[in-house]
Amino acid sequence: MKTYDIALIPGDGIGKDVTESAWQVMRAAAKRGGFALDGKRFPWSCAYYLETGAMMPPDGIETLRKFDAIYLGAVGWPAEVPDSVSLHGLLLPIRKGFTQYANIRPHRLLPGVQGPLRSDGFDILCIRENTEGEYSGAGGRVHSGTANEVAIETAIFTRAGVERIMRFGFEQARARRNKLASVTKSNAQKHSMVFWDEVTREIAKDYPDVEVSHYHIDAMAARMVLAPESLDVIVASNLFGDILTDIGAAIQGGLGYAASANINPDRSAPSMFEPVHGSAPDIAHLGVANPIAAIWSGAMMLEHLGERHAAAEVMSAIESITAQGIGTIAGKDRTETITRAVLAALN
Amino acid sequence: MKTYDIALIPGDGIGKDVTESAWQVMRAAAKRGGFALDGKRFPWSCAYYLETGAMMPPDGIETLRKFDAIYLGAVGWPAEVPDSVSLHGLLLPIRKGFTQYANIRPHRLLPGVQGPLRSDGFDILCIRENTEGEYSGAGGRVHSGTANEVAIETAIFTRAGVERIMRFGFEQARARRNKLASVTKSNAQKHSMVFWDEVTREIAKDYPDVEVSHYHIDAMAARMVLAPESLDVIVASNLFGDILTDIGAAIQGGLGYAASANINPDRSAPSMFEPVHGSAPDIAHLGVANPIAAIWSGAMMLEHLGERHAAAEVMSAIESITAQGIGTIAGKDRTETITRAVLAALN
Ligand SMILES: CC(C)[C@H](C(=O)O)[C@@H](O)C(=O)O
Ligand SMILES: CC(C)[C@H](C(=O)O)[C@@H](O)C(=O)O
Repeated sequence: MKTYDIALIPGDGIGKDVTESAWQVMRAAAKRGGFALDGKRFPWSCAYYLETGAMMPPDGIETLRKFDAIYLGAVGWPAEVPDSVSLHGLLLPIRKGFTQYANIRPHRLLPGVQGPLRSDGFDILCIRENTEGEYSGAGGRVHSGTANEVAIETAIFTRAGVERIMRFGFEQARARRNKLASVTKSNAQKHSMVFWDEVTREIAKDYPDVEVSHYHIDAMAARMVLAPESLDVIVASNLFGDILTDIGAAIQGGLGYAASANINPDRSAPSMFEPVHGSAPDIAHLGVANPIAAIWSGAMMLEHLGERHAAAEVMSAIESITAQGIGTIAGKDRTETITRAVLAALN
Repeated sequence: MKTYDIALIPGDGIGKDVTESAWQVMRAAAKRGGFALDGKRFPWSCAYYLETGAMMPPDGIETLRKFDAIYLGAVGWPAEVPDSVSLHGLLLPIRKGFTQYANIRPHRLLPGVQGPLRSDGFDILCIRENTEGEYSGAGGRVHSGTANEVAIETAIFTRAGVERIMRFGFEQARARRNKLASVTKSNAQKHSMVFWDEVTREIAKDYPDVEVSHYHIDAMAARMVLAPESLDVIVASNLFGDILTDIGAAIQGGLGYAASANINPDRSAPSMFEPVHGSAPDIAHLGVANPIAAIWSGAMMLEHLGERHAAAEVMSAIESITAQGIGTIAGKDRTETITRAVLAALN
């Protein structure tokens, strides 16, 4: 039987609850699909950090490398461990270390979910550059603590980096409705964003069948609220993609429904799948976290592994329970209730 | 009679239509209020650029300096003049040249206007840093046109720059409901945004009566869509404020209702008032532009000049006509109809 090795990093807080839920569903889908998922759990988290002084062992990345995919719940426990440690010690090193340069997030309303907008007919795929740009980490300060203090933060865009995310975006657009929106702020950031626009125009020549639009980030943010149904594939930089995918999560009803994949398209290293939400310390261990974003992220993992039929079955199961009003109202249904309903719908 | 000298820059496209409309209303309010507005029109625009080779004359800034305030319609005619010329040749030099470091934008639904959200009870004041940060213009490229090309864009934050916008924000919060939200992305931009957080915490000590919250830009973008009623004064950097104010414009029904002020709080130079919308070449000269954002911006100008009563009268007039359904549906009422209705409501 075909077997995939999956590294599971439940992480902190509700990350643990939703990982267990998603994992049960993925395993059930595998069973139906005639393949096996072999999971190995890693306790890497803020608790692990408080014990060992690191979010993961020094050879953590090497350990993960041999897996077919990584599934992550959520990391962060800000009261005790600063975000700079938890994120820069685990989440971001995996994204960058495995060249998971495409962060993909689907935004659409599940049946039965009432979003904040009056409009409900949208189906957007946001593709965020995940390894460089505004989150490169370059910068520093002079004259610390004086009236003359200056801090700078440098966004770094490479041709290879922009080319590969744009190519990935165009391929995704081809697999959907042949529409791609590229997002910049080239009227105010004339070095980085004008460069992004130039590279986009060059790559676009290889995809004459895809209709390309160019938006400024401010206009796109407004458009996602005012006319989301006019959008399809969106490609944006690390920061702009980060912002737009939170707007996407908002219009689809909140972080409880926002799934994501950090993809290494060349498959030279594993990809990672995670719900967009955080560890939510306030509701951790109460059994009330909504696992739908986590299960949806699991479906994205199955799809990436090539198990399209199983992925589609999981999505249908999610949609059939939300259509019945299960998991559609924040805090109403327990994690376990939702998980059982999805499992029942699957079988 | 007290007389204010106002520089009017109608600019391009619908900028001209809405400036005329707002100016008629401001003059009427002045008449009622027992003061005078003396307007001088400047034809600086893309048309002016095509004729003269510059968006404004070399001594443009010096000419404007002696006015009590500047009123701008909109600039830009992208088909013939690149944004880099129109914006960097007029709008941005005025903002920076006159140290208009606080860009203020109110976001609330006018009565009778249906926004895109199901929720309608919000009243937000966005304050955007307007002179430095991510739009500093610093950066460059190496290895142009080669596979090895790299572009960088450097955000520059100075202590004086962050301090003054934060103080301004705290003062505004005091004049409202003593709540201030500071927006950063300090978990991913550890130089600039950690600095912003530090300065904010220091300034906050001088305003113990104001409740401060810290948000990441992605979370704030989502919050403006999911729970705008939980927000009051928001202070953000140039880029983050730019994005959030477009979301604000979206939730208040669109750019037709988004007013703004570029304030020099020290009054060492004139402030500038402008609707947030652009020149909208597609509907220019058709007489269908909605002048409400422009009139609202005029009210902000009157307020800044110290004519609070007149400003409040203009706002009441706007609200009374939108409550009657005038100017509340895009394209339904002509610019002139709306202007006349506001004038009638004022008298
Ligand atoms: C936690 C944070 C560093 C992360 C990011 O900005 O990438 C998160 O916001 C996300 O969107 O996955
Ligand atoms: C036109 C552009 C440069 C401008 C800005 O980003 O400041 C606009 O978007 C605004 O918000 O006033």
